[in-house]
Amino acid sequence: MKVIEKIRDAATEEGKVVFSFEFFPPKTEDGVDNLFERMDRMVAHGPAFCDITWGAGGSTADLTLEISNKMQNMICVETMMHLTCTNMPVEKIDHALDTIKSNGIQNVLALRGDPPHGQDKFVQIQGGFACALDLVQHIRAKYGDYFGITVAGYPEAHPDVILNGVATSEAYQSDLAYLKRKVDAGADLIVTQLFYDTDIFLKFVNDCRQIGITCPIVPGIMPINNYKGFLRMTGFCKTKIPSEVTAALEPIKDNDEAVKAYGIHLGTEMCKKILAHGIKTVHLYTLNMEKSALAILMNLGLIEESKISRPFPWRRPTNVFRVKEDVRPIFWANRPRSYISRTIGWDQYPHGRWSDSCNPSYGGLTDYQFMRPRARDKKLQDEWVVPLKSIEDVQERFIKFCLGKLKSSPWSELDGLQPESKIINELLGNINSKGFLTINSQPAVNGEKSDSLSVGWGGPGGYVYQKAYLEFFCSREKLNALVDKCKGHTSLTYMAVNKEGTWMSNVGPGEVNAVTWGVFPAREIIQPTVVDPSSFMVWKDEAFEIWSRGWALLYPEDDPSRKLLEEVQNSHFLVSLVDNDYINGDLFAIFMEF
Amino acid sequence: MKVIEKIRDAATEEGKVVFSFEFFPPKTEDGVDNLFERMDRMVAHGPAFCDITWGAGGSTADLTLEISNKMQNMICVETMMHLTCTNMPVEKIDHALDTIKSNGIQNVLALRGDPPHGQDKFVQIQGGFACALDLVQHIRAKYGDYFGITVAGYPEAHPDVILNGVATSEAYQSDLAYLKRKVDAGADLIVTQLFYDTDIFLKFVNDCRQIGITCPIVPGIMPINNYKGFLRMTGFCKTKIPSEVTAALEPIKDNDEAVKAYGIHLGTEMCKKILAHGIKTVHLYTLNMEKSALAILMNLGLIEESKISRPFPWRRPTNVFRVKEDVRPIFWANRPRSYISRTIGWDQYPHGRWSDSCNPSYGGLTDYQFMRPRARDKKLQDEWVVPLKSIEDVQERFIKFCLGKLKSSPWSELDGLQPESKIINELLGNINSKGFLTINSQPAVNGEKSDSLSVGWGGPGGYVYQKAYLEFFCSREKLNALVDKCKGHTSLTYMAVNKEGTWMSNVGPGEVNAVTWGVFPAREIIQPTVVDPSSFMVWKDEAFEIWSRGWALLYPEDDPSRKLLEEVQNSHFLVSLVDNDYINGDLFAIFMEF
Repeated sequence: MKVIEKIRDAATEEGKVVFSFEFFPPKTEDGVDNLFERMDRMVAHGPAFCDITWGAGGSTADLTLEISNKMQNMICVETMMHLTCTNMPVEKIDHALDTIKSNGIQNVLALRGDPPHGQDKFVQIQGGFACALDLVQHIRAKYGDYFGITVAGYPEAHPDVILNGVATSEAYQSDLAYLKRKVDAGADLIVTQLFYDTDIFLKFVNDCRQIGITCPIVPGIMPINNYKGFLRMTGFCKTKIPSEVTAALEPIKDNDEAVKAYGIHLGTEMCKKILAHGIKTVHLYTLNMEKSALAILMNLGLIEESKISRPFPWRRPTNVFRVKEDVRPIFWANRPRSYISRTIGWDQYPHGRWSDSCNPSYGGLTDYQFMRPRARDKKLQDEWVVPLKSIEDVQERFIKFCLGKLKSSPWSELDGLQPESKIINELLGNINSKGFLTINSQPAVNGEKSDSLSVGWGGPGGYVYQKAYLEFFCSREKLNALVDKCKGHTSLTYMAVNKEGTWMSNVGPGEVNAVTWGVFPAREIIQPTVVDPSSFMVWKDEAFEIWSRGWALLYPEDDPSRKLLEEVQNSHFLVSLVDNDYINGDLFAIFMEF
Repeated sequence: MKVIEKIRDAATEEGKVVFSFEFFPPKTEDGVDNLFERMDRMVAHGPAFCDITWGAGGSTADLTLEISNKMQNMICVETMMHLTCTNMPVEKIDHALDTIKSNGIQNVLALRGDPPHGQDKFVQIQGGFACALDLVQHIRAKYGDYFGITVAGYPEAHPDVILNGVATSEAYQSDLAYLKRKVDAGADLIVTQLFYDTDIFLKFVNDCRQIGITCPIVPGIMPINNYKGFLRMTGFCKTKIPSEVTAALEPIKDNDEAVKAYGIHLGTEMCKKILAHGIKTVHLYTLNMEKSALAILMNLGLIEESKISRPFPWRRPTNVFRVKEDVRPIFWANRPRSYISRTIGWDQYPHGRWSDSCNPSYGGLTDYQFMRPRARDKKLQDEWVVPLKSIEDVQERFIKFCLGKLKSSPWSELDGLQPESKIINELLGNINSKGFLTINSQPAVNGEKSDSLSVGWGGPGGYVYQKAYLEFFCSREKLNALVDKCKGHTSLTYMAVNKEGTWMSNVGPGEVNAVTWGVFPAREIIQPTVVDPSSFMVWKDEAFEIWSRGWALLYPEDDPSRKLLEEVQNSHFLVSLVDNDYINGDLFAIFMEF
């Protein structure tokens, strides 16, 4: 979806303020890993979009493309990619645009870009563009209306025309006129250069309106994080620093914490003033840092730690090809990125009901599905790689994870248990101690309000429901005993399969079970999570493979623990168990008898 | 669906017995009207199919085709049409088959047929067939697997080969061999000729199995309704009458009631014996009568007056083209036949969610939609054609209907209120007395068991839900007051429109609201009834038209009541009102303030 559409939609909601975060491509692989973890947490607060800068001189072009792709499709945030003209012949530009288009990204920030490395002035290359206007024109000419195009606005005029800290009136006016030409050429949104004098920004907006620029103008706010960086950045951008800011920073400039706290205070006050003037957007230059940006938004009351809203039980994709998607199998609940990557080639995504989809075929297992960020690998190493002498040692890991004593699990891409599973963590710990190694679960929910903190989704005004669900590995003996018990509990349906594919179930192969659904005013029923037998058979290969690639391989090659894990992998069944009676049922009662 | 498939499906259900009813085309229009009313009531008990005979010598061919069509598509029962060779050149046969195929009928009972009127012996006509075997072969050759083909089995051999009340062993064997040929040629089901000696039937089944006939053999049971008819029928069919039957009938033969009671007793005992032998099907020759057939089924415990099960809130279509249909707008809830006829041309029917359908276009209003069976016309005349001097007189009709004092309504094809509306009939009466003339309603239901007598549907094991719904006509003043009140009740959504199309609503044009849904084990959510704005705009023309064509026209041309009804029609709004809070809401409370 185009960012401009999101801003326009938000404008119809009384009091709604749109915020967004900017990031840049980190220099190291660890840095990239960390950025995604951070971004994931920040995106949970619901920014309208995030943007990622284009490496200076195009040096990190491939990385930016890769990060954009992952932001849009794995982090699932509406992504805006910067694109500059520096060192970019038109073929490279088109390659970048084609790539993001095919990745379902619809937003570009079109810039001229900085001078190439080691040079003072921007140089137009052979077959390249001279300025952002050229780039905007090219994108509209070649890609029509597909992309939302954002351009930069300079409240103090472009640094190139600022001499001795200030632009002449003529230079400022000519810069404004140039901005109008970029908008007339097809840009639909303006994000400003950073500034610290709010009045300059407000005057700039006014000046833009005077010359007929009507599109939204989003203020770019860069929280001061440390003193030296602040000086470097404002020097580079030739940004005016109000005297009260200098006065406030001077006495604390060597105290990083104090500078940061002041940066949060200043950012908050700037935003408050801007919002008070009726501007309903805030763009935060995060410099890849989390704390200050979030603190400012919290001060503004735009986000609350305890009120992370979930439009769906899973994070809804922003990819333009899958925006209508609203049903998924529960199996990948803790591995959403694996799900996305295994389904990325689908022509259409299930919408409304799972069984209406034409049995789309899942992508095979690739190394990607088992590749984790380094930080997570390290956590797994710390938490899961302990000497395993017996099945009890294996159980012990699962129990600790359920009780929140471990943060990581080989079967999860996420940190710890999902909030709703925390409701049942003691129960989960208990059944793990009985040899049922749980990897997925949800409690029954019978008509809770849809804005409930733990189980709500879809916004206020509705009611949400869940059937209690458990997914676990267990031995054949335990499975047999469980199947026997199920005969006396007619509301229970199960599917079980081992690594070889031996199948036991009391449901038919085409019986799709909605296990999460919601009822909202003036809407059809939304049923975002299902248990689907044919998807289960696809998932089981992945779930079994994790025993080796996700866990055993973390041990040294000849470690006896590896052998034990392999035995479990070969002897256990993967079981999916639903209690269809979400009103009077008690899924856990059956395990008390073990 | 083919009857053989229904029988096979039923065979997988422990203890399930399949029953069916046979009818013949009545001779008068009133007779046809009455037959459909009767059939409608009988079909509520859930026969696997009903069949309709082909007029002797093809004399009533068109009528049989028309009745078949209406049975399948309006009564919504799986229909099997008889087809005979008598006086039927192949073009006529194909015309009949093409017609029922295009009407979504999949079942044919292929017969040779009786001799033409006034003749003793069957005569093969030019370009026609000599026997049922020819007909079976032709149907399979020309229509492939499309049709389920049933053939007749003669437990006592075909009457043609019965001499002096009994067939020779050779004749019987040759008749059996002929039956096998019909099955080998493609018949998939056998229904027997009537019989009164159960042992003969059981032996016949045995004999069939001996020669390799493996398809189900359905016993044809004709309850004795009156003595003379019984003698005529058994004489015609050369059916053996066991001596104990003769002995039982002889003393009561002049007492019609006693004969009928004995017929029920005998039919019940015959069926009990047959079922005890492991045969799980019973076909009843009803002779277009209701009582004896239903009484036998009740005696057998196969039906219960209080347990008419509803697979859906509305009667599910059996037409092969719309078997997947499982969503409908609520507006036609009391006029299902009008809905069917207005949608009969659709390429596909909404399935799963209404909004997934591609906005199919409704057929226009035709005379058909306002044509009622004579019996109903008379009832309306009696109940609704009273002198109307003021709007209060109009209200009075609506109030009486809601309170069950009238059985008919111009806005309904059905008898009286639907069971679920009876729950709220006092409330309905009350709001009608305040000038809100209700024509459709349902109470809120919050997770009742799906086998609940009043609001259940879909069989046992699930939970059903409803949002409270009201649809009514009211004046512009009342509507304005209601709209004001709705502002304080955020869970209420409404749509209102007058005859000219003036529209007021607090929902968007594409907002489809599921107002009835059910949650079942191992299933996605089923949402069979919706409130859909664009369908409402189609329905409103029909709803307003009923004021004139359904009511005013029943008065003499110059009756002043006509004028009053026209005024109401022109001044009132049609309002659809949903309380989206089916858990804590109280839709009726808002009307208490009037």
